[in-house]
Amino acid sequence: MTATNALLLIHGSFCDAEIWRPVADRLRDKGYEVFVPTIAGHGPDGDRRVSHDDCVASLIDYVDSHCPDRFVALAHSWGGTLLQKLAELRGDRLERMVFHNAFVLRDGESIHDVLPPAHRALWDLIKEDPNGLMLPFPVFRDAFANDVDLETAQAAYSHVSPTPVRSHFDKVSLPTFEQLEIPRSWLYAWDDVALTPGEFGWHPRMSQRLGLYRMVSMPGGHMVCQSAPDALTEAIIQASRP
Amino acid sequence: MTATNALLLIHGSFCDAEIWRPVADRLRDKGYEVFVPTIAGHGPDGDRRVSHDDCVASLIDYVDSHCPDRFVALAHSWGGTLLQKLAELRGDRLERMVFHNAFVLRDGESIHDVLPPAHRALWDLIKEDPNGLMLPFPVFRDAFANDVDLETAQAAYSHVSPTPVRSHFDKVSLPTFEQLEIPRSWLYAWDDVALTPGEFGWHPRMSQRLGLYRMVSMPGGHMVCQSAPDALTEAIIQASRP
Amino acid sequence: MTATNALLLIHGSFCDAEIWRPVADRLRDKGYEVFVPTIAGHGPDGDRRVSHDDCVASLIDYVDSHCPDRFVALAHSWGGTLLQKLAELRGDRLERMVFHNAFVLRDGESIHDVLPPAHRALWDLIKEDPNGLMLPFPVFRDAFANDVDLETAQAAYSHVSPTPVRSHFDKVSLPTFEQLEIPRSWLYAWDDVALTPGEFGWHPRMSQRLGLYRMVSMPGGHMVCQSAPDALTEAIIQASRP
Repeated sequence: MTATNALLLIHGSFCDAEIWRPVADRLRDKGYEVFVPTIAGHGPDGDRRVSHDDCVASLIDYVDSHCPDRFVALAHSWGGTLLQKLAELRGDRLERMVFHNAFVLRDGESIHDVLPPAHRALWDLIKEDPNGLMLPFPVFRDAFANDVDLETAQAAYSHVSPTPVRSHFDKVSLPTFEQLEIPRSWLYAWDDVALTPGEFGWHPRMSQRLGLYRMVSMPGGHMVCQSAPDALTEAIIQASRP
Repeated sequence: MTATNALLLIHGSFCDAEIWRPVADRLRDKGYEVFVPTIAGHGPDGDRRVSHDDCVASLIDYVDSHCPDRFVALAHSWGGTLLQKLAELRGDRLERMVFHNAFVLRDGESIHDVLPPAHRALWDLIKEDPNGLMLPFPVFRDAFANDVDLETAQAAYSHVSPTPVRSHFDKVSLPTFEQLEIPRSWLYAWDDVALTPGEFGWHPRMSQRLGLYRMVSMPGGHMVCQSAPDALTEAIIQASRP
Repeated sequence: MTATNALLLIHGSFCDAEIWRPVADRLRDKGYEVFVPTIAGHGPDGDRRVSHDDCVASLIDYVDSHCPDRFVALAHSWGGTLLQKLAELRGDRLERMVFHNAFVLRDGESIHDVLPPAHRALWDLIKEDPNGLMLPFPVFRDAFANDVDLETAQAAYSHVSPTPVRSHFDKVSLPTFEQLEIPRSWLYAWDDVALTPGEFGWHPRMSQRLGLYRMVSMPGGHMVCQSAPDALTEAIIQASRP
């Protein structure tokens, strides 16, 4: 149990609030109050022309109208960049930040800036696409759903939708993030190859940017929210507690 | 089950087909058709003067006379260099390549080129030895059999035989490997210190050379084929499935 | 069982022999003879003015008056620097050295020399403090006790005491350590972020300095001696056996 028992779960690219259902159900069964916004531009019917600022504004609106005074906020993947802005704008309400296989940007960086070179070249090809950026199934299957069988990967892919391109290219202003004194956790599913392990991988590259952090690790790939909801629920509890 | 249910297992240096018996038995019990060649120059009675090309030719001969039209090929350790050549020469028959704690060479490299400096110095001392290259037991015990007790390490060592020196020094021509569109998996036993972890380790150094790959990891050292056959069998199934 | 069945356990900074109680009890139940010195300057009543040489002398005195002719020596964290000196001074008595999330220094380095830059800046602020160096609870909770709940972290913190500052700043002379032929093991709890993973982390940075070593890994943070004594006992047995 966190001191607040309130948890905000921020999804990543190609996803919406639906991705958290297995984990949110389990956390609610254990007594947590769970908040799962869908960020502007995301989900099957999102407007793919939104900017990163629009995404942040949508999260802040959600938090201001739904969340209690104090809560723990967890972000997955691209959602890390939103959690960083939330910490700058509503930091007094955050008991702890949990980054789960998530991006952590430096002031003025975009997601595109920190992608592995091979990803970057692909992203450049589609950056003007008004329909958003879509993950091809073969990439999703091996790099995002490596820890499940084909049928489960196909079912998870049915939740995938195009993501607003600008949310990966807009530079994010983060002038105060590194100085914030909000405790941080890094929740790491160690078989994640959505970012290729090594120089351009999640860990320790992104985790190091947190300064002092609490480490909680577990087996599984990028989508443990779908492939291992029991283990992820337990890891979220360990990463979120005081 | 793979789409083909046929699996080719390629052994590493100091070994022969016998090393796969525990895993091959388990896979056959689960309905797989398993192919386990002994590569030229390997095993107790191998001719230690063979070249890397001879080893490749011996694998191609085996595949052409034993394997079905389509199969998944898995290679361990040095066997990775053979799998790379097999992919160039018989790629249309490979449903997927699985590299299990295996070398992945760039065009024109030899195994010797990518060894850690301390290994390289040792290899240089024995490179003219017509009797092959043998692993001393203390090295085998700590670096290859770190995850078992002494008795089990000694039993595993009884399967170790000298390996043809040229197979580690010959440069391997791999002009097309990186462009091949055959899916790749990296099956990683994470306590493997046969290559010292870090700058000269297996992962992510060798895995990165695969480009997009599926990650499957498990506990255990370099010889999980002997020390953890149940877990390796499960990992092979996860790494091989469509 | 080791060939000798005698095990010396060397504690790290901020600790004393008491930290080993859960593990020592379990090892004794399994038939091991376990030796657990408190190093000079450590524990609630230690004289914080001791030098690193004083710490080494205190360990040598203990070994000469308590330990049998042959034993396995295991060191945790800062204790690694004492084990290195013990190996130089009493190497003929060591059957094996086990470094458990431990420092491994090069000849002439101090602990301070190998700390991450952010740690180093903090250490510099307190290096003249005659009362020793103390871990603040928030740092202990997230970086040392990340794998337990708050109550357990608080209980573990009750064993923490200030550590002699000089033991982290004194340069350690290690002229022969790298050439010693005593077998080495690296026992690694992989969620340890007491040293931030990456360029300045425990593994593979410290482990690489051992040359050939046996790897034994387990889940958990820096204080698995408190948080996971069953698993650590098993890992110690695997790391110590012949």
